[in-house]
Amino acid sequence: MTIKYPDGHQFHRQSGFEQSHNDSIDFSNRGMTLEAELNESNKFYLNNEIAVIHKKPTPIQIVSVDYPKRSAARIKEAYFRRASTTDYNGVYQGHYIDFDAKETKNKTSFPLKNFHKHQVEHMRECLKQRGICFAIIKFVNDQSVFLLKATDLIDYWDQQQVGGRKSIPRKTIEEIGVAVPYQINPLLPYLRAVDLIIE
Amino acid sequence: MTIKYPDGHQFHRQSGFEQSHNDSIDFSNRGMTLEAELNESNKFYLNNEIAVIHKKPTPIQIVSVDYPKRSAARIKEAYFRRASTTDYNGVYQGHYIDFDAKETKNKTSFPLKNFHKHQVEHMRECLKQRGICFAIIKFVNDQSVFLLKATDLIDYWDQQQVGGRKSIPRKTIEEIGVAVPYQINPLLPYLRAVDLIIE
Repeated sequence: MTIKYPDGHQFHRQSGFEQSHNDSIDFSNRGMTLEAELNESNKFYLNNEIAVIHKKPTPIQIVSVDYPKRSAARIKEAYFRRASTTDYNGVYQGHYIDFDAKETKNKTSFPLKNFHKHQVEHMRECLKQRGICFAIIKFVNDQSVFLLKATDLIDYWDQQQVGGRKSIPRKTIEEIGVAVPYQINPLLPYLRAVDLIIE
Repeated sequence: MTIKYPDGHQFHRQSGFEQSHNDSIDFSNRGMTLEAELNESNKFYLNNEIAVIHKKPTPIQIVSVDYPKRSAARIKEAYFRRASTTDYNGVYQGHYIDFDAKETKNKTSFPLKNFHKHQVEHMRECLKQRGICFAIIKFVNDQSVFLLKATDLIDYWDQQQVGGRKSIPRKTIEEIGVAVPYQINPLLPYLRAVDLIIE
């Protein structure tokens, strides 16, 4: 099977990778978190000069640090802080890219409580600056991944505030989102889905 | 106190970490670090919907964490890691913005050792993706601040690799950079300088 990038560029599978006999190849590493999968994909995009997208470090509130004379400063007491932005951002062919990645064990819907208010507000702010904002959502049950535009996420979020659903039905995500099937190099070719929402 | 990375490189404190906030406005807040000044300026830009630019959290290598029953997870042992990107990025009216901020006590030149190889490579990568990349340089002696385009910084960096100068003369920075004079709201109006390099 020939896979093509939106620009017509052909994608070549690496040889030596074991393929299952049926057509649907399970590239997803079942032990891998969505974060690890995205980091690996971002490394591919970086090494191939396709995009520069990084996960931000986890914010930490440092309380106490030791400064030993001849070795590295050692943090003795610190706490996790809640991020005020999304986790991933960067630049892709002139576009500012900003997104968050969430996994759910739920099979039929994506619970909105996976997002914090701050993250949604951050997406709203980035959209005003003409950034490309979205969520990558993974249903771990059957290892399916979707890109959901921030505008759609925000619609559901806002409806929830006025008594609407507390989750987005999976069927809706399949309809309004873009599927991101696993492959090799990059493992999660989510920028192909981004191309579709840029247009 | 001076904190050093394992390789002897100096660590600058995060703002909000044991840092007093100087409310009295003598534009250039002498007690304020460049980082605090930029954070305050970015907050102004954010609140006024001019740009969404944040400092990335300091990367930490966590070694050990306690999970007390009724309180927040406590990090017991962790170390500072060196960032693989620049410290600041975001979106400004459709443009991807990426920069690093450096202070120097040197009066006549800016030592290139203030940058790490990783940061310069990151800038190179972002430029290829049509990001707007630069450095904000502060001469603490007379509290003057300049924006220097990443392309100019990279020129000096590359020349250094082949036996060129180990610093950029201040006179050169005054000539090829853009001055960012202190004011009120935002304290450091560096996006005005960015407008000039976008054109």
